[in-house]
Amino acid sequence: MCGIFAYLNYNVTCTRRTVFQILVRGLQRLEYRGYDSAGIAVDDDSGEDHKNGGCICLFRNRGKVKALADKLYEQTFLDFDKELEIHFGIAHTRWATHGVPNEVNSHPQSSDKNNEFVVVHNGIITNYKDLKKFLESKDYVFESETDTEVIPKLTKYMYDNRESEDVRFSTLVERVVQHLEGAFAVVFKSLHFPGDAVAARGSPLLIGVYSKCQLSTDQIPILYQKYKNNKNGGASKAHQIETENLKCLHPPGEEKSSVEFYFASDASAIIEHTNKVIFLEDDDIAAVADGCLSIHRIERSVGDLASRAIHTLQIELHQIMKGNFSAFMQKEIFEQPESVVNTLRGRVNFETSTVMLGGLKDHLKEIKRCRRLLLIGCGTSYHAAVATRQVLEELTELPVMVELASDFLDRSTPVFRDDVCFFISQSGETADTLMALRYCKDRGALTIGITNTVGSSISRETDCGIHINAGPEIGVASTKAYTSQFVSLIMFGLMMSQDRISMQKRRKEIIAGLQTLPDQIKEVLSLDKKVQLLARELFQHKSLLVMGRGYHYATCLEGALKIKEITYMHSEGILAGELKHGPLALIDTQMPVIMVVVRDPSYTKCQNAVQQITARQGRPIILCTKNDEESRKLAYKTIEIPHSVDCLQGILSVIPLQLLSFHLAVLRGYDVDFPRNLAKSVTVE
Amino acid sequence: MCGIFAYLNYNVTCTRRTVFQILVRGLQRLEYRGYDSAGIAVDDDSGEDHKNGGCICLFRNRGKVKALADKLYEQTFLDFDKELEIHFGIAHTRWATHGVPNEVNSHPQSSDKNNEFVVVHNGIITNYKDLKKFLESKDYVFESETDTEVIPKLTKYMYDNRESEDVRFSTLVERVVQHLEGAFAVVFKSLHFPGDAVAARGSPLLIGVYSKCQLSTDQIPILYQKYKNNKNGGASKAHQIETENLKCLHPPGEEKSSVEFYFASDASAIIEHTNKVIFLEDDDIAAVADGCLSIHRIERSVGDLASRAIHTLQIELHQIMKGNFSAFMQKEIFEQPESVVNTLRGRVNFETSTVMLGGLKDHLKEIKRCRRLLLIGCGTSYHAAVATRQVLEELTELPVMVELASDFLDRSTPVFRDDVCFFISQSGETADTLMALRYCKDRGALTIGITNTVGSSISRETDCGIHINAGPEIGVASTKAYTSQFVSLIMFGLMMSQDRISMQKRRKEIIAGLQTLPDQIKEVLSLDKKVQLLARELFQHKSLLVMGRGYHYATCLEGALKIKEITYMHSEGILAGELKHGPLALIDTQMPVIMVVVRDPSYTKCQNAVQQITARQGRPIILCTKNDEESRKLAYKTIEIPHSVDCLQGILSVIPLQLLSFHLAVLRGYDVDFPRNLAKSVTVE
Repeated sequence: MCGIFAYLNYNVTCTRRTVFQILVRGLQRLEYRGYDSAGIAVDDDSGEDHKNGGCICLFRNRGKVKALADKLYEQTFLDFDKELEIHFGIAHTRWATHGVPNEVNSHPQSSDKNNEFVVVHNGIITNYKDLKKFLESKDYVFESETDTEVIPKLTKYMYDNRESEDVRFSTLVERVVQHLEGAFAVVFKSLHFPGDAVAARGSPLLIGVYSKCQLSTDQIPILYQKYKNNKNGGASKAHQIETENLKCLHPPGEEKSSVEFYFASDASAIIEHTNKVIFLEDDDIAAVADGCLSIHRIERSVGDLASRAIHTLQIELHQIMKGNFSAFMQKEIFEQPESVVNTLRGRVNFETSTVMLGGLKDHLKEIKRCRRLLLIGCGTSYHAAVATRQVLEELTELPVMVELASDFLDRSTPVFRDDVCFFISQSGETADTLMALRYCKDRGALTIGITNTVGSSISRETDCGIHINAGPEIGVASTKAYTSQFVSLIMFGLMMSQDRISMQKRRKEIIAGLQTLPDQIKEVLSLDKKVQLLARELFQHKSLLVMGRGYHYATCLEGALKIKEITYMHSEGILAGELKHGPLALIDTQMPVIMVVVRDPSYTKCQNAVQQITARQGRPIILCTKNDEESRKLAYKTIEIPHSVDCLQGILSVIPLQLLSFHLAVLRGYDVDFPRNLAKSVTVE
Repeated sequence: MCGIFAYLNYNVTCTRRTVFQILVRGLQRLEYRGYDSAGIAVDDDSGEDHKNGGCICLFRNRGKVKALADKLYEQTFLDFDKELEIHFGIAHTRWATHGVPNEVNSHPQSSDKNNEFVVVHNGIITNYKDLKKFLESKDYVFESETDTEVIPKLTKYMYDNRESEDVRFSTLVERVVQHLEGAFAVVFKSLHFPGDAVAARGSPLLIGVYSKCQLSTDQIPILYQKYKNNKNGGASKAHQIETENLKCLHPPGEEKSSVEFYFASDASAIIEHTNKVIFLEDDDIAAVADGCLSIHRIERSVGDLASRAIHTLQIELHQIMKGNFSAFMQKEIFEQPESVVNTLRGRVNFETSTVMLGGLKDHLKEIKRCRRLLLIGCGTSYHAAVATRQVLEELTELPVMVELASDFLDRSTPVFRDDVCFFISQSGETADTLMALRYCKDRGALTIGITNTVGSSISRETDCGIHINAGPEIGVASTKAYTSQFVSLIMFGLMMSQDRISMQKRRKEIIAGLQTLPDQIKEVLSLDKKVQLLARELFQHKSLLVMGRGYHYATCLEGALKIKEITYMHSEGILAGELKHGPLALIDTQMPVIMVVVRDPSYTKCQNAVQQITARQGRPIILCTKNDEESRKLAYKTIEIPHSVDCLQGILSVIPLQLLSFHLAVLRGYDVDFPRNLAKSVTVE
């Protein structure tokens, strides 16, 4: 949530118009992270201050990035065609946490009227009230309700009270962040350091680098202020050798080296410019001064890496484009036949019925010795855990607990050394899940990540993991990540039971089911028109219940969440077995009910639930197995899906609900990819 | 669900009017178990058949018992003043499972036009489709959509095809029930056995007995058809000695003994007539012939009891009366200061800070050796488990899993011999919870019951247990049972940690909290008027969200369930930590939101959630600790409750929501004690 984007060109001539375009484009790619307001800060050479190096001007606007762009291009005081040889522009798209979405609460936030320091920020500063009180006592006047505003003001305070004249920009920021509590990624721009940039990571942040010339290194050494427990005892001043920083080597025959840096919350915003990226770690401070990038940390602990590598990204631009679809979410729903294949690829051998998850191979023995599996996630990722719990219990014969990360932390749940804990997160950056991971690690449990993002915090901090390979997911409402997480967990169960003779029949059945899954998903997707007609009947309702049990309880939770997220209808997933204990009171002729009743061991019990609903004049829409005459008799309407193995059926049953939520949202006139109040990649607690 | 009541007078002269009154009163006491329709069957001596011993007539009506009573007293063909010396009348109040609520689907169900056999039934016959097919092939014509109708028709078929002329009524029923699958309590009345009764138990059923004379025994021996594994090998015909049956001894100087029998689904229906009851066990068949009660079983297994005892009930009539309250639910909410004291009484010693649960004492060592606690329940009982999970994890240092009974069964969850499993159910008869108990028992786990009903199936079948002592709960929406279950689980945690030095401080704090709890509950109840005013603002809304986290997640689930059950508003309990992962999309200026934000370790996180809601123009009603200025600033309105120990606070925070649901239901014009579609004591799966 909240997207940060910044662009620094060093000895690369481009017009101001180009700078605007790059910043706006970057924000649009990150817009799924929040779209309550947007803003940018660029150099302003129009005014009186021109001779003194200019000043910094802000453009901020409530609403989506498009509105900001309109405002930018309508402005008249800046010259669009002015060529800027060295320039640093920062930009932000906001998901409001503190303060309503309006212009004054938008980022960049500023230190003062002259914008000496401006800041874009993702995350929450938990001690902002104390800092605000302190700064107010020093006569700083706050204009916004944000937690962010303390950052530029504190920076100015530190700058104005600096000990020596020639403080570095990075040193200044180092001092500032030591006073901030919470989780945050921040990018700073300053009038005092024109053309320079400083960024600090606590929430996701990466840096893309592009140069026509050769780079000086592909490993950027970290500059420590002091070393913890170093051999000489005590902390010592770290060396700061400029030559170790990243810069571009002069191309032969040219006088100056040229380079471009992109700062962004995630890779989708920079992939069109470069595929060379540096993933920052928590507490890293990255600074660009005179075109050289250096990375700083306060303190070196034993075991810390000495450098940050430059990685080459594998994703392609077309993967983050909508193509012929009207929304990313729709595109991602229809990608599922392929994304599921990508999850399976190279891992399941259908000929020998064996499964090999490369990422877990080395830890398999250890995993098998455990006493308990814990599956931890939030939202959709949690539902993937609920969906596969039963089959994991069956295949591993271990107790499996599923936990919502926030509740797991609130409860200070007991975790033991013989536990194996899974952390499921599409982005790999979900704050609660990441905190739960650290909590379990501290208690000595073996940790396994299930993420869709290489290089994400969860994939880096877990002992081992499964990359779901679903390809970039842009739609805020997660769809293909869910089915790929589902398949990944199934594969884990299959790998765990590989050596068990008594389970071979069941394993073969499931593996055969996996093989036909992509074609069956295509078949379910062909119901799209029918689901759209159904959506026409339902879209004006205020509430919607989705009921099922057994393997499909998760389908109900997930389907209801999709509908909640993008249609704002009050939908709820209800365990059909709990119907009689309360929810049945909601049933009348008006309340729309969708029931999942497929041919599996809980079929009869589900039919009982349907009977209870029809006995109260309810008119259930039944999501059932193809050609189920019983259900056709009882249903107001049916949606019929192909039959699969019981434990895989949930992958097929969720898809009609994904489609339904999409069509409902379109009919209700909402923007599917930008649900109100929400953002993808929830990086605050 | 479904209430059975039957009355047999033997040599006790009473008018037909009195018989009607007794049957109607019995049904009214059981009405909380279902009120879709009601019906009775009595002897009819008005017609042509009078000379042949009369016939049986049925009165059945859709709707509540009151409507049936009106119909009864409007009829003109039966003479109200006729004295009936020996008579058997059966009655039923229905909670519809198969077939809509209408007259023809009401009970008693009948064998044929002449009503040779009539039956009232609670439960589900799962193989009714097969039986119906069979009977239709024998030219039986079915008139209802119920599963029940196969029972009287099969009985008539068996009677018409009997081998010898003089079959007993009880033998006939024995043969019938052997063909029935499912869970059922049934009472039979027949034209061929006037004045006789037969009942079979699979769902709860008990028999009250009253006589002015002395009873022949207080232990009724069971008559077995055959013995399993008896010493002589093979099954042998059991003795059937009439003299062992229960009857009344002739009083000196009188010629005839007189006795009255009451058959009922639970004790509340008979307590005004007698406090002597016989609790039947599953598969018992009880028969009254010529005023003698005998109990039959098909087969005796090793370990089966040889007799059923006559118990003396402890409950008092006033306990099941409404008193000055307008609804049982309201009375039970206001009883909580006392019911909590009753739960604590004799168990917690506040001077020594020790806890002794008599029911668990003998198993404590075994419980302490376990590896894991499982808490299993449905609906409100499940929420009591969620509410206490964290403190149990803390005090026992064991992993605690909470499970919805139906889902637990659907998943065939792995259970091990070193598990300790709790089964929580107010009635002690909840079908899913009972099945889960049997499932865990089969796997060798130690089982503990937490019920409010002495003699219930769960309290009998568990290894040990805690009786919550909340007193009879009549309101369909459970209130005082929840708080007493909550307290019982806390006491268990305290008892488990009694021997731990490091936990004494925490234990003392909790025990001191328990001591002040009753007064604090009174203080919360004094908010009633304020909550009523709030209800006036909310009652016209369609949806309502209740949010919280940590110890109060359960409060949200339970509060939302109460509102669902009796107001039919679509309310949902949401974990505040999940807000950002979807539900936040529902927030706008219109959607009413209640947030629980009390002073405990998750206070700051809850405040963050409130911020996120106010940032989207939501207007939260905050349930907070007394005098919380922060919350007052952010809230649209506050409800302020006294502060208690974190783990007990949930007992106080749920009460305003109980009150709110009550007032909302009243304002919306609904009958609080009879929520549509629901019934108390869910005895079907």
